[in-house]
Amino acid sequence: MDLRRPSTIKDVASLAGVSTTTVSFVLNDVPGKRINSETRARVKDAADELSYRPNRLAQGLRLQRTHTFGFVSDAIGATPYAGLTIAGAQQTAAANGSLLMFMNSGLDPELEDKEIRALLDRRVDGIVYASDYHRRVTLPPSLLRTTAVLVDAFTDDPSIPSVVPDEFGGALTAVRELVAHGHRDIAFLNNQEDIPATGLRLAGFTSGLAENGIAFSPERVIREEPISAGGYRAAIALLGRPDRPTALFCFNDRMAMGAYQATADLGLRIPDDISIIGFDNQENIADGLRPGLTTLALPHYEMGQWAVQTLIDLVGSGVQHPIHQALTLPCPLVRRASVGSPPSR
Amino acid sequence: MDLRRPSTIKDVASLAGVSTTTVSFVLNDVPGKRINSETRARVKDAADELSYRPNRLAQGLRLQRTHTFGFVSDAIGATPYAGLTIAGAQQTAAANGSLLMFMNSGLDPELEDKEIRALLDRRVDGIVYASDYHRRVTLPPSLLRTTAVLVDAFTDDPSIPSVVPDEFGGALTAVRELVAHGHRDIAFLNNQEDIPATGLRLAGFTSGLAENGIAFSPERVIREEPISAGGYRAAIALLGRPDRPTALFCFNDRMAMGAYQATADLGLRIPDDISIIGFDNQENIADGLRPGLTTLALPHYEMGQWAVQTLIDLVGSGVQHPIHQALTLPCPLVRRASVGSPPSR
Repeated sequence: MDLRRPSTIKDVASLAGVSTTTVSFVLNDVPGKRINSETRARVKDAADELSYRPNRLAQGLRLQRTHTFGFVSDAIGATPYAGLTIAGAQQTAAANGSLLMFMNSGLDPELEDKEIRALLDRRVDGIVYASDYHRRVTLPPSLLRTTAVLVDAFTDDPSIPSVVPDEFGGALTAVRELVAHGHRDIAFLNNQEDIPATGLRLAGFTSGLAENGIAFSPERVIREEPISAGGYRAAIALLGRPDRPTALFCFNDRMAMGAYQATADLGLRIPDDISIIGFDNQENIADGLRPGLTTLALPHYEMGQWAVQTLIDLVGSGVQHPIHQALTLPCPLVRRASVGSPPSR
Repeated sequence: MDLRRPSTIKDVASLAGVSTTTVSFVLNDVPGKRINSETRARVKDAADELSYRPNRLAQGLRLQRTHTFGFVSDAIGATPYAGLTIAGAQQTAAANGSLLMFMNSGLDPELEDKEIRALLDRRVDGIVYASDYHRRVTLPPSLLRTTAVLVDAFTDDPSIPSVVPDEFGGALTAVRELVAHGHRDIAFLNNQEDIPATGLRLAGFTSGLAENGIAFSPERVIREEPISAGGYRAAIALLGRPDRPTALFCFNDRMAMGAYQATADLGLRIPDDISIIGFDNQENIADGLRPGLTTLALPHYEMGQWAVQTLIDLVGSGVQHPIHQALTLPCPLVRRASVGSPPSR
């Protein structure tokens, strides 16, 4: 063998006594291929011995990669925190020298399919498919023609990696924070809509009570419109009576904003008389309220980062349809000033 | 002439006694071409006589139109109302059977140029270039290679049509609304940042006073951070003294949110003791406050509509660099419940 010539995949296959396809599967870590560990070891040893490195540049040229990804959403910019998903995705793309093209479907399946096909015609390397809130989605068929990942959404298709916020864990964190301050009588102002976050946060809430030996009282959960006015009504109902709870956990920051107004109307002070925790970390509200609202942050930035990094990794490995990876990312507590000790009675 | 054959541009040119180029200029209404009115009339008469219609489909094929436009912004989704610009643009595109590809530059000129070139490589018919707030921009050179329009931005280049909100008119509307309710002592909680809206809204405010014969008092204008905390500080300074104004006009809804908190802390009721008007119609805040905040809406949806419609019209007419059109769109008053009559003293 001419030692000045870089070794090729054929050299590795020949030395290991396997096909070039097997070498490719082993060295590219292609999942789902049944290759026994002895063969894997033999291929890796042969590659090491020959100092063989797959020619990534040539692979890129052969596959005509464009280092451009599509980002299809049902509501780009329609929610105040959607910008964080975009920022996380964008900065990850930029760090990898990739570009992102965003398209907005407005929940119109026909337009969505047209947009995805337009992106594929323009040779994107893969597509981020993002929902504007955590929900089950039906995938547009055109999406299966490329490498795709889901953000804030899940589906039954096992071939598409997805990421959603850990709603359960966020609610659990909220209860733990309140219990750590001494609260035992905590109400939950929940969303009246039947979306995944509603059930998952309720489960986290009840689990938080249970792990602290606090009995669950159904009357301490009020389901309302997930806006300021709904939070106001629920808080008035809960706080306008002598046996009021000492803390409110609100489905979102908008409901917490309404709860603040209710406490003001009832002459209660936050956090001296009542502690309040929100959800979303919607900064215009959480920072804008007085006192500042302690809340759970949704991992939008991190979901955007994860989505693009996962696409880059999948495209780089040549694996279009990996084994399903359904990830949840934590909702961290953002402490401001709305949680204190319960009033002594 | 064979009457069963559709007439061509050559037939029209021959009958009118002009060149086919002149026929094209006249029938496509290409601006900036000096063709005298007598010639124009002769061409149109000839076209009518021959029932000549330009073959729009063939034109599209010849120009290789893709019916896809780029939308480049420095901050897609980073402001709560940016979604409205996108919605207006998207719905106008959909109504015309066009697609929009969004790219987000994050104020990075190098990335922006790369993105615009990527869009041009993918044969968009034109580009909307949108700022996240009303400001002067320096155009990326690559933008001049295509048909472009500016949203919420202006530039010295006379070849690029642009649209911005009528900041002056919005502030004037706010003062007129307050004066109509009987207010004569109005304070302005202005932004401390030197951006166009700051000066234009101040000019609208002083003009509104002047047209109503109200003397301008510099101490009735406080410049602060354009967030809730800034509005709170300014409102405390203005309202925490006996000679307080009867109405506050706030630079934005976030400052108005802080002003609400100040009135609560001072024991003043809205609108009985003090009237408040915001700016932006940021719905999470304006609808979420109690009482609801009367405010001026920014014409984001309309700017998005205008941008895409203008691009479609320009591309359709074949005019890449039209005569400068710098448009301002009105900021309409959105009445809720924060303005009433001044208290009797």
